[in-house]
Amino acid sequence: MIQPVRYAGGVVHLLDQRRLPAEEAWQACSSVEEVARAIETMAVRGAPAIGIAAAYGVALAAARGDSIAAAIRRLSATRPTAVNLHWALARMESRYRQLQAAGAGPREVAAALEAEARAIQQEDLAMNLRMAEHGAALLPAGARVLTHCNTGALATGGHGTALGVIRTAWQQGRLRHVWVDETRPVLQGARLTAWELQKEGIPHTLIVEGAAAAVMRSGQVDAVLVGADRIAASGDTANKIGTYMLAVLARHHGIPFYVVAPWSTVDAALPSGDAIPIEERDPREVTGYGDVRWAPEGTPAFNPAFDVTPAELITAIVTDRGVLRPPYRDAIAALAVPDEPGPPALGRPAQDLGCW
Amino acid sequence: MIQPVRYAGGVVHLLDQRRLPAEEAWQACSSVEEVARAIETMAVRGAPAIGIAAAYGVALAAARGDSIAAAIRRLSATRPTAVNLHWALARMESRYRQLQAAGAGPREVAAALEAEARAIQQEDLAMNLRMAEHGAALLPAGARVLTHCNTGALATGGHGTALGVIRTAWQQGRLRHVWVDETRPVLQGARLTAWELQKEGIPHTLIVEGAAAAVMRSGQVDAVLVGADRIAASGDTANKIGTYMLAVLARHHGIPFYVVAPWSTVDAALPSGDAIPIEERDPREVTGYGDVRWAPEGTPAFNPAFDVTPAELITAIVTDRGVLRPPYRDAIAALAVPDEPGPPALGRPAQDLGCW
Repeated sequence: MIQPVRYAGGVVHLLDQRRLPAEEAWQACSSVEEVARAIETMAVRGAPAIGIAAAYGVALAAARGDSIAAAIRRLSATRPTAVNLHWALARMESRYRQLQAAGAGPREVAAALEAEARAIQQEDLAMNLRMAEHGAALLPAGARVLTHCNTGALATGGHGTALGVIRTAWQQGRLRHVWVDETRPVLQGARLTAWELQKEGIPHTLIVEGAAAAVMRSGQVDAVLVGADRIAASGDTANKIGTYMLAVLARHHGIPFYVVAPWSTVDAALPSGDAIPIEERDPREVTGYGDVRWAPEGTPAFNPAFDVTPAELITAIVTDRGVLRPPYRDAIAALAVPDEPGPPALGRPAQDLGCW
Repeated sequence: MIQPVRYAGGVVHLLDQRRLPAEEAWQACSSVEEVARAIETMAVRGAPAIGIAAAYGVALAAARGDSIAAAIRRLSATRPTAVNLHWALARMESRYRQLQAAGAGPREVAAALEAEARAIQQEDLAMNLRMAEHGAALLPAGARVLTHCNTGALATGGHGTALGVIRTAWQQGRLRHVWVDETRPVLQGARLTAWELQKEGIPHTLIVEGAAAAVMRSGQVDAVLVGADRIAASGDTANKIGTYMLAVLARHHGIPFYVVAPWSTVDAALPSGDAIPIEERDPREVTGYGDVRWAPEGTPAFNPAFDVTPAELITAIVTDRGVLRPPYRDAIAALAVPDEPGPPALGRPAQDLGCW
């Protein structure tokens, strides 16, 4: 099983995703500072994976006898707007306070915080497996699907969201083929999704985004599966740039368009997608790739990290709480638990659940 | 004025498009073999530009006293399916036979063949300017347009097709802004269109294909302008991969979608787009760029060079004979001249008018 974050012998091991697929290099972090830098430099990516890495960072601090409060402060500062990161750190902090209140000794604290971090990872994995079962059941036998970006084991506690559905459908013998959008500008599809599918032996073909429409028109796509970064109460969904394009194309070709994301992605306090501000990233991601420049020096570029797909283009939203169908406002209201922790503050940029 | 092919002093000068935008390097070809190699290695690209380069190659052979027949054979072999190349060479050959029949001497032949090649280039430019006038008249004042690939001066005798419309609209003060699709996999938009627009000082912004839908949804696109490689009698249009995607997205957003191409692109003998076979190019164009690989070794990729946009998604087709409106079958039949040279054989791959 692909798990990009592991904890063993007081060391956090991170599969360095910047070096994939050329190299499977693991970073061994034996201090909180090393974990923090790995998050800041995107050696680890995908909101759940980042949250898990940070939780292990706290466990590591406890094992070393470092200050837990200082560890949480340092790790919080790595990506100030990442929802899962802050959720995971808040959960570790809450567990630590419980232990303090109970007068636990350092060894007991270290063991309990390690257990809490492992629980965060296990729960994320279990949630992914639940979503995958729900999602796979929507696909026809012999399904040929199209996916975007990387929403796989690399981005999560393991298994993945949209790619988790693909993995489970393959294990169930229900899947025939996967079309992988390369996902410019950061190429997570070409680099990471292709790598995961190759590892699992799942038949796949890489295409440029511009070819997705022609592939749909050729009748070789039975469903489109994408992740989500943030889902409004209306069902409007923010996700990696290019997702909205796929939704429009799927509608035009009569192909079901499924969003796969944990319930934590749903922000019931956000009325619609119009309220989701979209992060703009460095234009140099568009004028070239890595150190290679291909546009003329000085070419202006627009590089939105995400786009918003309106609810009316989404066939169903697959969550760990079940499959939501339109009208999403009612479906979301029906599954929301009134006393669960409030959603993150309204108006922060769409975040990187599944993709950075 | 940008003109990628020039002839002076018995030398064919070609702006090496492989080295743009990093370098404006000119290749000076003083033999037919050098011209042929420049075409084969894509130093010159775009069907009209290739045809013009080949015509000057024949003029060069005549100036050197080389065999005209051998020159035409060598140049024909460079790109066996390129329509414009063979059209230009047939025209040069026909002129040569006239001269032979009239008993012209070598100097007279050389002068006449140079004049014929210059006429081919001048006629192409004049045709582009006519199309540009027709196309610019369709745009609203202050138009913000989106274009794909490179259909500019670099691909033609000068000015360009879709980009020629943009150039003329800018000169007329009618154009506000151009969104440039980078056009994966070969990145003609990022490399060549951005270069031409920068040269002309036309305001533009580069985007990845995946962002085109979001930009349209934001209300900042008044028209989409693309070139064409082959237009069937039905109006169905083959063009650079990604064109069909733009047509579907434009329809969804209520944005006019214009095809700009010389009349020679219309193949009235081809009943519909279904009859256009699509060339597949090297999958390595998709798994990386140039010498850079980013997909895992062994990743399968699908790399169609073109796609077909059905006529019903096209608002108008702008040609040098005028603006065609649906139903295209009638519009094309009305403008077709019964005794003009027959269209190229049915069933050859879509060719690279404007793009390779």
